[in-house]
Parts: sequence; C-alpha cells; structure tokens
Amino acid sequence: MKKGIGQHSIGDAFDSFMLIKESSRGVASNGKPFLTLILRDNTGEIEAKLWDITSDDEAVFVGEKIVKLTGEVNQFRGKAQLKITSIRPAQTTDGLHVSDFVEKAPVEKEILMEKLTEAIFEMKNPAMQRIVRAFIKKYQEALLTYPAASKNHHEYVSGLAHHIVSMLSLAKEIHHLYPQVNKDLLYAGVILHDLGKLKELSGVITTSYTLEGKLLGHIPMMVEEIGHIAKELQIEGEEVLILQHLVLSHHGKAEWGSPKPPLVREAEILHLIDLIDAKMNMLNRALENVKPGEFTERLFAMDNRTFYKPLFEE
Amino acid sequence: MKKGIGQHSIGDAFDSFMLIKESSRGVASNGKPFLTLILRDNTGEIEAKLWDITSDDEAVFVGEKIVKLTGEVNQFRGKAQLKITSIRPAQTTDGLHVSDFVEKAPVEKEILMEKLTEAIFEMKNPAMQRIVRAFIKKYQEALLTYPAASKNHHEYVSGLAHHIVSMLSLAKEIHHLYPQVNKDLLYAGVILHDLGKLKELSGVITTSYTLEGKLLGHIPMMVEEIGHIAKELQIEGEEVLILQHLVLSHHGKAEWGSPKPPLVREAEILHLIDLIDAKMNMLNRALENVKPGEFTERLFAMDNRTFYKPLFEE
Amino acid sequence: MKKGIGQHSIGDAFDSFMLIKESSRGVASNGKPFLTLILRDNTGEIEAKLWDITSDDEAVFVGEKIVKLTGEVNQFRGKAQLKITSIRPAQTTDGLHVSDFVEKAPVEKEILMEKLTEAIFEMKNPAMQRIVRAFIKKYQEALLTYPAASKNHHEYVSGLAHHIVSMLSLAKEIHHLYPQVNKDLLYAGVILHDLGKLKELSGVITTSYTLEGKLLGHIPMMVEEIGHIAKELQIEGEEVLILQHLVLSHHGKAEWGSPKPPLVREAEILHLIDLIDAKMNMLNRALENVKPGEFTERLFAMDNRTFYKPLFEE
Amino acid sequence: MKKGIGQHSIGDAFDSFMLIKESSRGVASNGKPFLTLILRDNTGEIEAKLWDITSDDEAVFVGEKIVKLTGEVNQFRGKAQLKITSIRPAQTTDGLHVSDFVEKAPVEKEILMEKLTEAIFEMKNPAMQRIVRAFIKKYQEALLTYPAASKNHHEYVSGLAHHIVSMLSLAKEIHHLYPQVNKDLLYAGVILHDLGKLKELSGVITTSYTLEGKLLGHIPMMVEEIGHIAKELQIEGEEVLILQHLVLSHHGKAEWGSPKPPLVREAEILHLIDLIDAKMNMLNRALENVKPGEFTERLFAMDNRTFYKPLFEE
Amino acid sequence: MKKGIGQHSIGDAFDSFMLIKESSRGVASNGKPFLTLILRDNTGEIEAKLWDITSDDEAVFVGEKIVKLTGEVNQFRGKAQLKITSIRPAQTTDGLHVSDFVEKAPVEKEILMEKLTEAIFEMKNPAMQRIVRAFIKKYQEALLTYPAASKNHHEYVSGLAHHIVSMLSLAKEIHHLYPQVNKDLLYAGVILHDLGKLKELSGVITTSYTLEGKLLGHIPMMVEEIGHIAKELQIEGEEVLILQHLVLSHHGKAEWGSPKPPLVREAEILHLIDLIDAKMNMLNRALENVKPGEFTERLFAMDNRTFYKPLFEE
Amino acid sequence: MKKGIGQHSIGDAFDSFMLIKESSRGVASNGKPFLTLILRDNTGEIEAKLWDITSDDEAVFVGEKIVKLTGEVNQFRGKAQLKITSIRPAQTTDGLHVSDFVEKAPVEKEILMEKLTEAIFEMKNPAMQRIVRAFIKKYQEALLTYPAASKNHHEYVSGLAHHIVSMLSLAKEIHHLYPQVNKDLLYAGVILHDLGKLKELSGVITTSYTLEGKLLGHIPMMVEEIGHIAKELQIEGEEVLILQHLVLSHHGKAEWGSPKPPLVREAEILHLIDLIDAKMNMLNRALENVKPGEFTERLFAMDNRTFYKPLFEE
Repeated sequence: MKKGIGQHSIGDAFDSFMLIKESSRGVASNGKPFLTLILRDNTGEIEAKLWDITSDDEAVFVGEKIVKLTGEVNQFRGKAQLKITSIRPAQTTDGLHVSDFVEKAPVEKEILMEKLTEAIFEMKNPAMQRIVRAFIKKYQEALLTYPAASKNHHEYVSGLAHHIVSMLSLAKEIHHLYPQVNKDLLYAGVILHDLGKLKELSGVITTSYTLEGKLLGHIPMMVEEIGHIAKELQIEGEEVLILQHLVLSHHGKAEWGSPKPPLVREAEILHLIDLIDAKMNMLNRALENVKPGEFTERLFAMDNRTFYKPLFEE
Repeated sequence: MKKGIGQHSIGDAFDSFMLIKESSRGVASNGKPFLTLILRDNTGEIEAKLWDITSDDEAVFVGEKIVKLTGEVNQFRGKAQLKITSIRPAQTTDGLHVSDFVEKAPVEKEILMEKLTEAIFEMKNPAMQRIVRAFIKKYQEALLTYPAASKNHHEYVSGLAHHIVSMLSLAKEIHHLYPQVNKDLLYAGVILHDLGKLKELSGVITTSYTLEGKLLGHIPMMVEEIGHIAKELQIEGEEVLILQHLVLSHHGKAEWGSPKPPLVREAEILHLIDLIDAKMNMLNRALENVKPGEFTERLFAMDNRTFYKPLFEE
Repeated sequence: MKKGIGQHSIGDAFDSFMLIKESSRGVASNGKPFLTLILRDNTGEIEAKLWDITSDDEAVFVGEKIVKLTGEVNQFRGKAQLKITSIRPAQTTDGLHVSDFVEKAPVEKEILMEKLTEAIFEMKNPAMQRIVRAFIKKYQEALLTYPAASKNHHEYVSGLAHHIVSMLSLAKEIHHLYPQVNKDLLYAGVILHDLGKLKELSGVITTSYTLEGKLLGHIPMMVEEIGHIAKELQIEGEEVLILQHLVLSHHGKAEWGSPKPPLVREAEILHLIDLIDAKMNMLNRALENVKPGEFTERLFAMDNRTFYKPLFEE
Repeated sequence: MKKGIGQHSIGDAFDSFMLIKESSRGVASNGKPFLTLILRDNTGEIEAKLWDITSDDEAVFVGEKIVKLTGEVNQFRGKAQLKITSIRPAQTTDGLHVSDFVEKAPVEKEILMEKLTEAIFEMKNPAMQRIVRAFIKKYQEALLTYPAASKNHHEYVSGLAHHIVSMLSLAKEIHHLYPQVNKDLLYAGVILHDLGKLKELSGVITTSYTLEGKLLGHIPMMVEEIGHIAKELQIEGEEVLILQHLVLSHHGKAEWGSPKPPLVREAEILHLIDLIDAKMNMLNRALENVKPGEFTERLFAMDNRTFYKPLFEE
Repeated sequence: MKKGIGQHSIGDAFDSFMLIKESSRGVASNGKPFLTLILRDNTGEIEAKLWDITSDDEAVFVGEKIVKLTGEVNQFRGKAQLKITSIRPAQTTDGLHVSDFVEKAPVEKEILMEKLTEAIFEMKNPAMQRIVRAFIKKYQEALLTYPAASKNHHEYVSGLAHHIVSMLSLAKEIHHLYPQVNKDLLYAGVILHDLGKLKELSGVITTSYTLEGKLLGHIPMMVEEIGHIAKELQIEGEEVLILQHLVLSHHGKAEWGSPKPPLVREAEILHLIDLIDAKMNMLNRALENVKPGEFTERLFAMDNRTFYKPLFEE
Repeated sequence: MKKGIGQHSIGDAFDSFMLIKESSRGVASNGKPFLTLILRDNTGEIEAKLWDITSDDEAVFVGEKIVKLTGEVNQFRGKAQLKITSIRPAQTTDGLHVSDFVEKAPVEKEILMEKLTEAIFEMKNPAMQRIVRAFIKKYQEALLTYPAASKNHHEYVSGLAHHIVSMLSLAKEIHHLYPQVNKDLLYAGVILHDLGKLKELSGVITTSYTLEGKLLGHIPMMVEEIGHIAKELQIEGEEVLILQHLVLSHHGKAEWGSPKPPLVREAEILHLIDLIDAKMNMLNRALENVKPGEFTERLFAMDNRTFYKPLFEE
C-alpha cells in the first residue's frame, strides 16, 4: 500500500483506498443533504464532507465500506479535512479487506491460535478442557479478530486473542513459581474470562456496545453462557461453578463490576494477571511514543497518570 | 401448644417440644463427646448441652429435627441455658411440623398464592407471563416457605412470598398513579427479582448460604436461570433480556451487587419498591416493640439508626 | 398564539410576543452599550442583541418583561440568533401574562388546590392541621406557581404544587398498604417539606437562588419557619418538633443536606416517596421524547444514566 | 475533702460522699430488685450494687443525688466495685453541691463571665451586640455550667464557657494578624456557635441528648432561635442572616452536620478556630498524662491517633 | 513605569518593556517558523505572534527574557493579542529586572528576612537552631524570592517567605495562648516545612515542576535534606527525627501527601496554622476584588466555593 | 526437639524449652507481684503465670530469653494455659538459639543469599549495582533474618529475604515476557523496596515498631538512605532519583503510604509484583490448613475474605 493518510501534510494531494468508519447525514444551509465521513487506513483517520448526495450515495457510503478516494488534504478550524474530488466503492477485484485498514496485534492470528491450542492441550481436567474447547469452537473466528476492549488496552484487531495469549504466558510462569496453583483452572479462567465481550461489543471496527452489552454486561452474559454450554455438554460437578466464579469475580470488586470478589485462589490470580497484562500493554505502547527524558501523554485508564521514560533508557 | 420457651424464667421446669436449629459436636475435658444444641420454638431460642453422647445420638439430634425435652431453665455466664433431663425425637404421631416452631408471615400461604396467581392472570404480555408461570411452577413449594432474607427483613417462613405480594400491591398503585409504567414488566420483575434466593439460601430454618450462593450470589444465578427457562420455552424477543436486566439491576448500584444500574424505567421502580417494602417491614416490626416516647433498638440494615415513636401515636 | 420560536427555521421572519428571561448589558467595540436578551415563549428560547440602546431601553427591557418583536432568525457561530427589527413592551391591552410563555404543570392550578384542600380536610390531628393551614394560607399564591426545583424535576410553573399533589396520592396508597403509618403526619410532611423553596428560589421564571437560599438553604429556613408559625399559633406538643424533623431529614443523609437522617417512620417514608415522585417525573418526561428501541439523553440527576425504552412499548 | 475514690486500692475501706451519676434497676436471681449505681467524685468513678431495695430506695437513690457511703473496694471480673455497707442521702447540712463531684474548667466562672462581657463590650455593630446580649441574658446560668460536649473536648463543668473564652482569644489574635477580618462578626459567631448545645444536652452531669437534640441537633435549633430572638428584638438587616449562616456552617462540611459550608470569611475562620481550640484541649490534657518518650492513649476524636511526647520536653 | 498592558484597550498603540513568560515555536501554513509569546508586566498578560523568525530570534526570545516592544493591541477570536511592530531584548542599561514584571509580596524582602532572623534568634534549643540556620544560609536567596506555590495561595515573588513570616506570627500567638506548646519546635517546623518547594518548583517566574519535584515531591525531598544537613552538622538526638516528622506530616493526611499524620502536638498545630494562613491569603485577596453584597469568583483550592461579602462591610 | 507446645492437649505434662515472647508484670490480689509470660516454640504459643516473683526473676525472665520449663497444660476461661512447676533460663551448654523457636522461611538463608547475589551479578548498570551492593553489605545480617512484615505475609524469620527472592523470580519472568522492561531497574527496586523495614521494625521476634518507624515509616526512611548512600558513593545521575521514586511509590497510592503513585514503568511493575507475592504467600499458607470443600479463615489483609478450596483439588 502507498503512503497512508497519517503521512500526508496540509496541501498534499491524496489518491488511495480508505475505510469508512462512520457516516452521518446532515442538511446543508442550501437545504441539500450531505454526508460527514470518518475515513481511516492503518496509519490514521481523517474527516471528509461529501456534498449534494443522492439517496443512492447514502445507501452506498456507509460504515465498514472500503472506498477509493482522490482529493486534497485541507485544513478546517485547525483540523485536517479531506476535500473529496472523486469517490467510489472498492470492488472485489481491488482485493482489499476491512482488516487492511485497521491496527492489528503484533502477533499473527495463526500463532495466537496455535498458542491457545497448546494451552488447551496441556489441560488435564476433562470437564474444564471440554468447556473451553466448546467455547473456542463456537467463537473461534470472532475470538481471533475482536479487540480486547473498545479503548484503553489491546484495542486492535486480534486484541482479545493477543491479551489471552499473553496472560497464558504469565499464568504458566505463576504456576511455575507457585506450584500450588491449579494450572488447568487458571488456564481455563484466562481463556474464558473476557469471551463475553464478543457479544458485548458490536464488531471489530466500530466496537460500540450491543443492547445486551449495555443492559447486562459481558460478565453476567458469560456466566450464563458457561451454564448453557455445561448443560449442553452434560457436565456436572464443581468445575462449572468454579469457572463461573472465576469469570464473575475477575474484575476484583463490586465497584468494578464483579458482584463477588475472588474467593478461590486462581480467581485472585486471574484478576491480578489481567491487570498486569492490560497495564503493560498500555504502558509499553505509550512509552514507545516518547523519547528518554520525556513524559507520556496522560493514560486515562491508569488514573490519568503520565509516565516518565528515564534518560538511561538508551 | 403450651407456654413457649420465650415465656420461661430462670429456675422454671420445662417440658415441651422444640426444634433443633443447630447441633455441633465438642469434646469435654473428660474426653467424652457432647453436643451443643440451639433449640427453638415459635417464641424464642435457647442453648443446651447434651453430655456423654453416643454416635447414635450424634446421628439423631441434628438440625431441623423436632425433639421432646424435659429439663430446667438455668443460667450460665449471664445467658439462659436449658439443663436437659430427658430428650427424645418427636414421632410422626406427635403430629408436629418444622413450621410449628418458626415465625411465620402474617398472611397465610393460600392467600399469598392466590394473590400471586391473580397478578399473573392480569398480565397481557405472553412472553413475560409464560416465563413467570414456568418459574412459579418450578419453585412453588419453596417460594411459599422460604424467607426473603436470612436476617433483617421478612426473615420468617413465607417471607419471600409475603415480600413479593406486598410489592405487587405497591406496583399496582404505582402503575395507577403513573400510567406510563408497564405493569406486566413491573409485575414480572417483582415476582422474579429474588427467586435466586431459593438457591442461594440453604433452607427455611437454618438459612445459611449454599456454595453457589457464596461464589455467585442470587442475582447472577437468577439471570442465568431466566436464560435457561426462556431457552426451554423457546421464547425470543427483548422481553427475556429486559427481565434479566430487571433482576440484574434491582440492587441499584454496583457496590450493592448490581453490576448494571437500572436502565429501564420499570427496573428503577422495582429497585425503589423493593427498598420501601423491606424498610417498612423492618420499621413496623421494630416500632411494634416500643411504646410511644421510646426509641427502637438499632436497626443494622437501616444504617444502624434507632427510630422514635412519637407520643401522639396513642 | 401563532407559530412559536421553537418552530422557526434559519431565515424565517418572526413577528410575535416573547418573554425576556434574562437581560445583560455589554459595550460594543464602537463604545456603545447594547443588551443581550434571552427570549422565550412556551415553545423554546432564542438569543438576541439589541444594539445602540438608550438608558430608557435598559430600564424597560429587563427580565420577566413581555415584548412584541419583529425580526429574522439568523445563525451566529452555529446557534440561532434573532435579528431584531423592532421591539416594544407588551401593553395591558395585549392581554398577556408571563405564564403564557413558560412550561406549566399538566394539571390545572384549581385542581391542584382542590386536592391540597381535600388532603388537609382529611387530617384529624388538630395541631398538624392548623400548622399546615397556616402555611397554605400564607404562601398559597406562590405555592401554586413556583416550580419544585430550578432544574431536573418539576421545573415548570406549578411544579411544586404538582409534586406535592402526586406525593399525596403516593402517601395515601402507602397508608393503605401499611396502615400503621400515621397519615396525618405523612400528609403534613408532604405538604410542608419543600415550602422553604418559595424563599430559596427567587421567582417562577428565573429561579436563581436568593441570598438566604444560598447561605442557609431551604431546609433550615423551613425548620425555622415551622417554629415561628407554631409560636404564633401557640401550638405546643411533640407535633411541632416531629414536623420540623420530617422537613429536616427529608433529603435522607447529611451529604445530601439533611443534618439528621430520618428517625421517625413517616420521615423515612417521606424521603422515599419524594425520591419516587421526582424520579418518575424525570423518567417519564425523558422517555416521552424517544421511540421504542432508543435510549434517552443522559439524566444528570439520575447519576447521569441514559434509559432504554424497550421495543415492546408499542 | 478526703482521699477520693481514684486514690483507693482494692481492699481499702471507703467512707465518704459521692454523686450518683446513673442508677438502673435490675432483678436478682432470687427475684428481688437491686440497683446498679455509677458513683463519682472529682477523682473518678466506681460501680456499686445496692441489693434488696425497697421502692423508697428506688425513689431516693437516683441520678444527680449526693450520697454518704461506707464500704470496701472489691474487685469483680477485673474491675473495681464498691461493696456498700451503708448508704444515705446527703443532707443540706452536709453543705455539698453536685459541682463538688465533677471535673471543672481550669478557669473560674467569674473570670469566664468577665471575659465574655469584655468581648461583648468591644463589639460596635449594634445588631450583633444586641442579639448576643439577649442570648447571654437568657442562658447565662446554663452557659456558665454546661460542658462543651458530652465527651472528647471541654467535657467538664463550665466547659462551654471555657471553650468560648479560649476561642475569643484566638479570634482577637486572628483579627490582629489579618485586620480585614470583621471582629464583631467573628466574636458574635464564637459566642453563639454552640449555644444550641444547652438545649441539645440534658444537663451538666449526665449529658445525654434531649429528644430535640436527637431529632434536630444543636445547629438547626440555634439557627431557629437566632431567628426568634431577632424577631423579638425587631432586628432586621443582613446581620441576622449572616449570624445564622455562621452557626449553620461552623462544622465545615455537610458530612459533619453543616448543610452549607462556610461562605463568608468569618464563617471559615470560626470553623478553623473551633477546630484548633478543641484539638488543643484534647491534646494538652492527653499529653499531661504521659512522660517524655511516651505515647498518649488513642484519641478517638483525633482519628484515633496516639501522640508522642518528645524526650526534649524536659 | 508607563501605563501597563492591563490598562490598554483594543486598538491602542503599545510601546514599553515586557517579560517573556513562555515562548513556543510553531510552523505557519507558508512553512515558515514563528514564535508564540506570552508576555507579561506587573499589570497583566497578553499573547503575541512573532512571524518569520530566524534561528537567532529563537535563541534570543526565550522565557524570562525582558524585551522592548512596539505594536498595537488587536483582537483575535475574542481575546486581546499584541500585534508586534518591533521587538528587541532589553539591555543592561535599561536597568530592568525580571522582578519588575511580576506580582510581589506586600512586605519587603528586607522586612521578611528581619522577621525570620528574629524568630531564629528567639530559639533556645541549639540543635533546632543550628539546623534552621544551616537551611537559611544555604537557601537564603531563593527563599526570599520564590512563591509559596505555583498557584492558589502566596503565588507571587517572596510568597514563600511571606507565608513563613505570617505563620510565625500565628505560631507566636498560639504559644502565648497555649503555653504548653514548644515554641522552638513550632518555629523550626514553620520555617522548614515548605523549603522543599525551592527544589520542587523550577523558578520564580514559570514555576513548573522539576523532575525531582514530580517523582518525589517536596515533602520527601525535605525530609531527606534535613537528614543530610544534620549529618553534616553532626547533630544527633530526637530533634532531627521530630523535625523530619513535622515536615513529613504537615499536609495532615495520607491522601494529601503526608504518609504519616501529625503524631506530635506541634506537628498538629503546624498543619493547622499552615491551613489558616493559606486560606486567609486566598480569601482576603478574593474578597478585595468584590463589593459588599457580591460573591467572589469560585476559589478552586477552597472546594470551589464562592464567598459572600456582607453589606455591612461598609 | 521433642513434641512442641502446639501438639499438647489439656491435661498433658510439659517438659521442654520455650522462648519468652513477651513478659509483663502484674500485682496479685494478695499484693505480690507476678509475671504473665507469652511463651512460644516453633509449633505455637501459650500463656503462663509465674507467681510470687523476686526482683531477680523480673530481671531474668524477659522477652527473647529462652527458658526450660516443666508443668502442665491447663485450661483457663476457655484458653490453654501452662501451669508452671519449674522454670530456669537456658544455658549456653543447652546449645539453643532464639531462631529455634520461631517460624522460618521455607528456604535456607544460604540459598536466599545466593539468589540475591546472582541477581546483583546479572545487573549491568553500574550505578544501580553499586547502590544495591552497598545496601546488601550494610544490612546483610538483618536482611537475612528479618520478617517482611509484623503480620499478614512473610511474617517469619528470613521473611524479607524470602519475599525479595520470590519477587526477583517474578521480575525475571516479567522481563522475559515484556522485554521492554528495564531488568536492572526492576531488580534494584525489588531488592531495595522494603529494606527500610529493617529500621522500622524493632527486631526479628517481637517486631514492634521503632520510634522512627512510627513517626516516619519505612518508605521515607529508605528514600533518605538511598540519598545518603549515593552521596557517600559519589554517584550522580538519574538512577538515584529513579530508585528513590521506585521505593517511594511502591505502595501504589497516597492512601496506602506512597505520596507519589508509580510514574515510571518499572515502578508500576514493582507495585504489582509486590502485591502478587504477598497475596500468594497469604493465600497458599491459609489454603494449606483447609481440606477440599472447605473455606479458609478470614484473611484480614485480603479484605477479610475467606477463600474456598474446590473439591477437585485432590
């Protein structure tokens, strides 16, 4: 792909493909309808106006559609804006996918799937293994593409799988250092804990919340689904309840969305390694953008702190 | 029934039936096992020691068993204690039931069931009506005997049904005053909101918490079961989700056990009338025990306040 | 009345009466004074500039004055603004009242007064009845026109009386369901609880706070006035103290402005039904503005929540 | 007076006068009534039982009565207890007063009154001066005997006057250092701020709370009374309102009982010097009881801290 | 000095000296670099753009530089902006100092130093006196010029010394009223408590935070330095520890930056008089700007309150 | 060593060595002094009274003394008590050490020291390495014997070193999984973070707090000492400041004793792995004491939670 939108300056001509992230209709002072488009490629975002539209245009230029654009990068009220000269929907022959236009995990899907499979293979408790397998089978595709959150941490394609695989590595080491830890239970908890997000978030690109997500939230949704799947698989025994408890309690406190705090050792660890991996993801990405001797931007999900990169880091 | 334990003074002889509420084994300084029994009838509770027990005794004198006792009311470290002269399990021919020994709702089971049935009959939305009916059918017996809580409010036999029926009256009036309220939804919420307690509490008498109750709590358990039952009844549509939301949010705040606050009008009302009925139950019972011009004992579940009964109340 | 300001579009001519809600003086870059007017009718608000004013103009075009305007609806920095061509004060012969230009309670003043009178008539305790009557007599006119609050709930003409009358209906039903409740005390509490707002808020239209309102607040002001009036009526006995307590405690907690929490049964109920009626008022009005399947705007006074209207609401 | 109860050891005979602080009736295991007496002199307190009492005894040996006792100091469950051999009420001829048996302020009443009078004399604003004078006249006797609180600070006879006079000295110095401060207003605030306690606390010795104290609290009671007195004196003008505000806000925050925080300079200072004098009183008395190098007992009203007395303090 | 920038109106010509408070480089749409300057004199601030700059300009027109400017006061987006006609750095011969362009304490440096010296001279404890002397000697110049804070209170030249000297007066009076207070310790605490700010804040004019200030804060920095200096002076004994404790605890609570609360009498007083002097400074300056009958602007550091100046204040 | 005190039952004779943990003097009702001893061996604790003591006894039987005892295990008010028949101080020839009587880390001192040395050897940053080495050299002996805390976690001999070594393993793995982490900095932070406890706690056995510990706390004490040692070693550069920051911020929040929150990546990780290792230590030891299907006792330092050991754990 050519130079992305993130590398253009004011005044540059632009001629490339972009993804429509959002499209909203307005009416201009001359009474004619227009579209405000938020366009993105994998280097950044830009706003554009499409004037004097037809009802066909409205139906075509919608969210998650890929388009071919020519135009010029202008400035409007201090922000860059793309002045559109021509626009057309991408065609199958253009060979493009939505995923070409969004940020992705630094690890390939195949690798992530492989590591997940390995972890499940290591599990010895059949009840837990079967439940985990059933979930992976049911949600494999979504799991490998969804972000882990709509913002803050792992908010990119395959973010959820990336988060799970990182946490599995942490879980393995924790088990190594504290051998009393039940590895099967911890692995199962890691893999399942956030799968409810696949139904809470509406999609990979727009990641708004579904109605179910808003009214129930991913935690109770997942507790319920573990119950359904265990019923279908005719699994009984404490494993089901304990797995539900791990999911239910993994936010740690009632104020953070867990009606019960962790009351099983592996539930406590699950909460802690979830915290660590989320924080390391945010911190490492923020620190990459600054030079030694500088502070990062404020990180909202880390109590709005700004972090310092010491001079001795290079 | 004769004079109850609550009406005996220190030094009185005692000869009557009581219910064993709790039984726990200890070993005396002479090395012999004994039982500490908490006994109750519907006028109060007393502790007793049963010395030099056999393993048969251990198997017989357990919680929820009715026994015939003779003895004397003594005092030990400032508390009344029953010195047992003789003890035997009650026999079928004694014609007694556990329910004779516990406090009961001021309304009969039959009336409570009738009022529940009436309310369900009034409902017009078929999805909600069918779900509510399925629950009533499944849990009818437990529903009519369980308390609404292990302490604080409606903590007596049929307390849960009594609480529901009171709330249905409130719901009816609220609907009358604010006709925008969806009566079917509010009725369904009222009936279902606390049914999870039937699985959270271990029984009518001892009302300790089940393992499931401790690790998940009645709210997520009930959200899950609404899902299961809707699946079995093949009911789809927003009604299922909204009913789950009403149950999930009825404690009002995350800190109080609801991971989502009420986000539907009837969910907000459900939370409010649950509060009112619980508080009125506590307040009215506490104020009955004091005379005008006096304060009640401290009510733990009402921020430990003590309430005043004005002189002009007769 | 003709088409209101709320129904005009940019570019429309305007020729009608409006109420001046606020008027503030500025000095233009040419050194001449001008007025910024906030104008309203019962369909909405608009801003206007009145240039090159005389000191007469300043004295005439003040808050709560009705004016006849002609002009054109323009746009300035993205907001509608009325360009004034002519302006004159309304005359008596125009037959207009301030109340024609503001939102009103959905129930007529006469009905509200009737319901209040009925409730007072039902009271049997002479001390409470006399105190309530004295307040109604003293404040009748203001009571029937003031809003219940400057924003959030019942923030319209007769809002306070509307709130009281709604709460009286709730009180009646609560008494019906829990007959231990002292109806006279609860009625008196409902009628008096917010009357302090008549002195806390500066008026019906602008509803800013008086100095007394800012430095003392409506609760202590009302506690004091109950004392004054009881003295004048030479009423002694616990009724006075208990009524003062109901007013003092009706916000429920110190953090919410009640230095004492409710410590009398009817004080607790008063707090709860005040909550219910305020919340129902906010919720019902917000939900009227959305269609099934949509969420309302955020409701600041309900913890900033946004509420969902289910699809099955028609 | 002879050796006080605080100087007796277990086994000592006792023969002296004491004050009954509390008297409560019980029934012994033999069925006969007895009294539990809390007795005090100005060196400490002791418990005693008076067995086999008559109804005359019950009427005579009540709180705030002075009695002549002989007996022996015993020990019961680890606490000292007075075994009574004989008891009789003190007679007028014994020449004793309740105040002989309680802790007193380190400054004489006459001096306290003098300092109060001086401060009032210094005031120039006639409205404030007249209001303060009216209060002093009305409450002079109680003001000079009441404690400032039932525990924590200045909890001794004349404690309230002592607290006021100390604060007046602080006020004078603050005015000296920050001459913008309105001395009259600050003096009036200092003198009035806690007078409501004269009606909130039931007396000098037992210092329990009156009903009015429990249901309204001293702050709203005092705000009301300033209103009454200003009415009687026909004083109008902002002084009344501002004085009410100073009283209302002097606890500083809603959570601490002030529905409005200080919003006038002198209200803020009043709050701060009230804090300082209360804390210095607690601290100085606690530190007197320990040697350099030791920590005091925990001071409940200072966040349960324990304070260190450095070695270099002597 | 001539009319300051604060006295100019839009359209006025300007010809005077100003101080550059901040200077930041930008690139214009024509690709050429420019500087945005924040300029101030002791009457106020204004923004200006310096277009088409050379790299020499960039090196010369930096923060804390005094410049001679001619130009015109314009308006840009509603804010005043200085259009620069000519600019040159001030020369030594202009005889100007940075301190001519900033707000200053209302007391002269010499007086402040004198009062400090007096207080130290009064101290009798040699250990404390020597430590305090060492600090004053080391930091004298900075101490007499730094503000006490970067905003809120005493945020002007010599603000820190002014704050200390005010607090010394308060300390003297407190010692007078409560003679148990150790005056030497309290004086030492007052003088040392905020000296860490000399290393926490980067300078007198810009008062941003140093890296050390951001990562450690002035309190731990000062605790450490007291340790260093005591070591150098070979002072041992509890005085060092107690002084460190006074500094450590002077914010009063962990949430406010003191890991230990005050646990020594003088530490508690230090905390209280620090509060009083800071609040009086903020309040008095805010009230000076309003007329009787008005409220001040909101004071952020006083819980965002707005204070009322009563009508009877002249 | 023979059967320990923890394995004795009521009525057993006892004849062995124990350590006096605490000794306090009392006076019996017969007027003679006695000692209350808290005795311990490495299996548990018991109380004993030593009656009719001489002043020699008082001087001999003090805390941290080893004694030879014969007697009988009795019961007093429901708690075991050792009735002493004979007691004598242990002699050098008994070959016993205090450390024989206390709980110890499950890893030998030598191993702990070796692992510490290895970690320091791995460090490449000379400034950090030299500072860490200086501390280890200065405190080696105490470091290898002190507990990590006076209760809650690692509260046993060598507990601090055990905690550090566990955290070093976690640090190594975290660095492995997130290679951006600065291993030297994290290692140095882990080793230094709690060394202040060596001066905060008074000793290995009694672990009460020193005066310095109470008035400053281990965090500011350690920040100061890093400064002193860096000065002595003439180390300059950001390493010193960053290490001080890691120590200062390792409790994570102001409320928990860190005046600055972590503002450097490794500071955040240090806080997190400190939490994990402390929690794992508490959890694993509590769960060892219960069987599958049971709950542990309440763990105070984990929000008073009680943890469940699932049935499938064996």
